[in-house]
Amino acid sequence: MTDDAEQNARHDGKMKKIKAARDKMMAQKIDKKGLIIVHTGKGKGKSSSAFGMAMRCVGHDMKVGVVQFIKGGWETGEAKLLKKFPDLCEFHAMGAGFTWETQNRAKDIELAREAWNKALEMMRDPSFAMVILDEINIVLRYDFLPLDDVLSALADKLPDQHVVLTGRNAPDTLIEAADLVTEMTMIKHPFREQGIKAQIGVEF
Amino acid sequence: MTDDAEQNARHDGKMKKIKAARDKMMAQKIDKKGLIIVHTGKGKGKSSSAFGMAMRCVGHDMKVGVVQFIKGGWETGEAKLLKKFPDLCEFHAMGAGFTWETQNRAKDIELAREAWNKALEMMRDPSFAMVILDEINIVLRYDFLPLDDVLSALADKLPDQHVVLTGRNAPDTLIEAADLVTEMTMIKHPFREQGIKAQIGVEF
Repeated sequence: MTDDAEQNARHDGKMKKIKAARDKMMAQKIDKKGLIIVHTGKGKGKSSSAFGMAMRCVGHDMKVGVVQFIKGGWETGEAKLLKKFPDLCEFHAMGAGFTWETQNRAKDIELAREAWNKALEMMRDPSFAMVILDEINIVLRYDFLPLDDVLSALADKLPDQHVVLTGRNAPDTLIEAADLVTEMTMIKHPFREQGIKAQIGVEF
Repeated sequence: MTDDAEQNARHDGKMKKIKAARDKMMAQKIDKKGLIIVHTGKGKGKSSSAFGMAMRCVGHDMKVGVVQFIKGGWETGEAKLLKKFPDLCEFHAMGAGFTWETQNRAKDIELAREAWNKALEMMRDPSFAMVILDEINIVLRYDFLPLDDVLSALADKLPDQHVVLTGRNAPDTLIEAADLVTEMTMIKHPFREQGIKAQIGVEF
């Protein structure tokens, strides 16, 4: 055999073994469970990947509910797109702007409570396959909403519904309650390193 | 003042200072640059957040190109949804299944080359605001595609176009070349810890 053919044969044999091990493992797995999913950390991608999942659901004709707890000053692309599917997505951009923009804690608390009530409504409705609580961790961090209210609602969650919670600084007790937790770690960011502002299509 | 009113006043004063510092910083930032974006790490959300960005672009009427270098055995929700916007998204699910499914290195190399040629075509076309090279890091890791070809194409990238590369084990030289790098770190995963299979809407 030539070197190349040998390398290919070695690779194919190795992959055969990996597949056998994987097939055995997969036979022991279960199929379905509504998950509590947390995206936290300082890196990019917490909300983006939640909206990527929303898009997957809509693509599969599964209904999604979204509550944005912290609304930015711009109209986001994800809101614009999901609004094109009113039967499959209920989208609520609630809350005021970034916490440093509002400078009004009393108002922030009031808006957080309104947003949470909307979230609860969707979490109790089995027609929603997924409910996304975008940036709720920020609201929890500033005590705009009692953590215990959120934890007990998650404990009583509908068994088949996925609930996704995003935002940096997820509380430890929330991480304990979750099934799937990813920390987005910032390795490089052009905002910090190159002085580039948030850009359309990338951040909003 | 009551305790609550005091706490609110303290919070609002603090936010006022944060806003002043932020406004000063933002005045020094620049507005626009096509970014090289890398999502890597073992955690969830690498492809989801790339597709979240694709959705943002489509929402803003910006054109997106997608090449999937590793195609799974299912039809993904993101493919289904993005195909509803043929004027704004060109979607190519290329490559075979997972590397352990194909067990045919020669074929994997051939498909990687075809996928890369499609990617290059879109990267040379300024009508694309964003090009997503999904799971290209896997292809690079197995040497199905020469890393130098990818690095030199990125060095000659169109200045306004964003290019997003996903997949675990991003090569160090790719990370050096990138503007924005996020590592998705797995904290908890129900596949490992609870034996739950990949679920519709969450993983595909």
